[in-house]
Amino acid sequence: MLGRLNHIAIAVSDLAAATALYRDTLGAEVSEPQPLPEHGVTVVFVVLPNTKVELLEPLGENSPIAAFLERSPAGGIHHICYEVSDILAARDRLKAEGKRVLGDGEPKIGAHGKPVLFLHPKDFNGTLVEIEEA
Amino acid sequence: MLGRLNHIAIAVSDLAAATALYRDTLGAEVSEPQPLPEHGVTVVFVVLPNTKVELLEPLGENSPIAAFLERSPAGGIHHICYEVSDILAARDRLKAEGKRVLGDGEPKIGAHGKPVLFLHPKDFNGTLVEIEEA
Repeated sequence: MLGRLNHIAIAVSDLAAATALYRDTLGAEVSEPQPLPEHGVTVVFVVLPNTKVELLEPLGENSPIAAFLERSPAGGIHHICYEVSDILAARDRLKAEGKRVLGDGEPKIGAHGKPVLFLHPKDFNGTLVEIEEA
Repeated sequence: MLGRLNHIAIAVSDLAAATALYRDTLGAEVSEPQPLPEHGVTVVFVVLPNTKVELLEPLGENSPIAAFLERSPAGGIHHICYEVSDILAARDRLKAEGKRVLGDGEPKIGAHGKPVLFLHPKDFNGTLVEIEEA
């Protein structure tokens, strides 16, 4: 069921500084900042040869990462995203195993234009897991 | 400078349960548990098509992940590991930029038999970063 690691998402309070760190200090390829108001974040993609890191800065009043950054002002890994081939089959299998799917359980269109779901960190070793239909 | 994402390391308190979660519930390929007494952990490798997840359980009295699990008993992402082609050049560049390298600054042989260094989370958006010479 589990496919590629699509990305690691790191919440940051200063996107320009985090971008400079990855671009200038770590020497990675980075994208321009992309505001995603419908997701409450501005994102910069750090392109690695085999996957990507997404640097997320809060955008707007109800950003889903605002509370995370209040608890961890220095930032930190917010979630990891695995690809699945069939998100409804994955959801049903997870629910049948007693794992909690966040929200109303219906896939939303994520930042890459594909259906996504988030899984409860308490059911996944303290890790917020996103699954995305690849 | 930054190469592939070598792995994401997730600290867990119950390696058998975490392995079953990734193998049975998430349907991923997993390795046998590998005790690494010199690193104070037992590790299970979760093999993804493009990278791997390492599930780490404390081993022995002075495990480097024991304090992490005391703070976060449910587990959590402990570090991420990026590959670099020349670890001494990477270290010197990072130090010249004012970034803190943990320990005495000399690469150690990591769990994969290759030289590694760890970088201070406060200098990397609250993320413990390992670099490994690929």
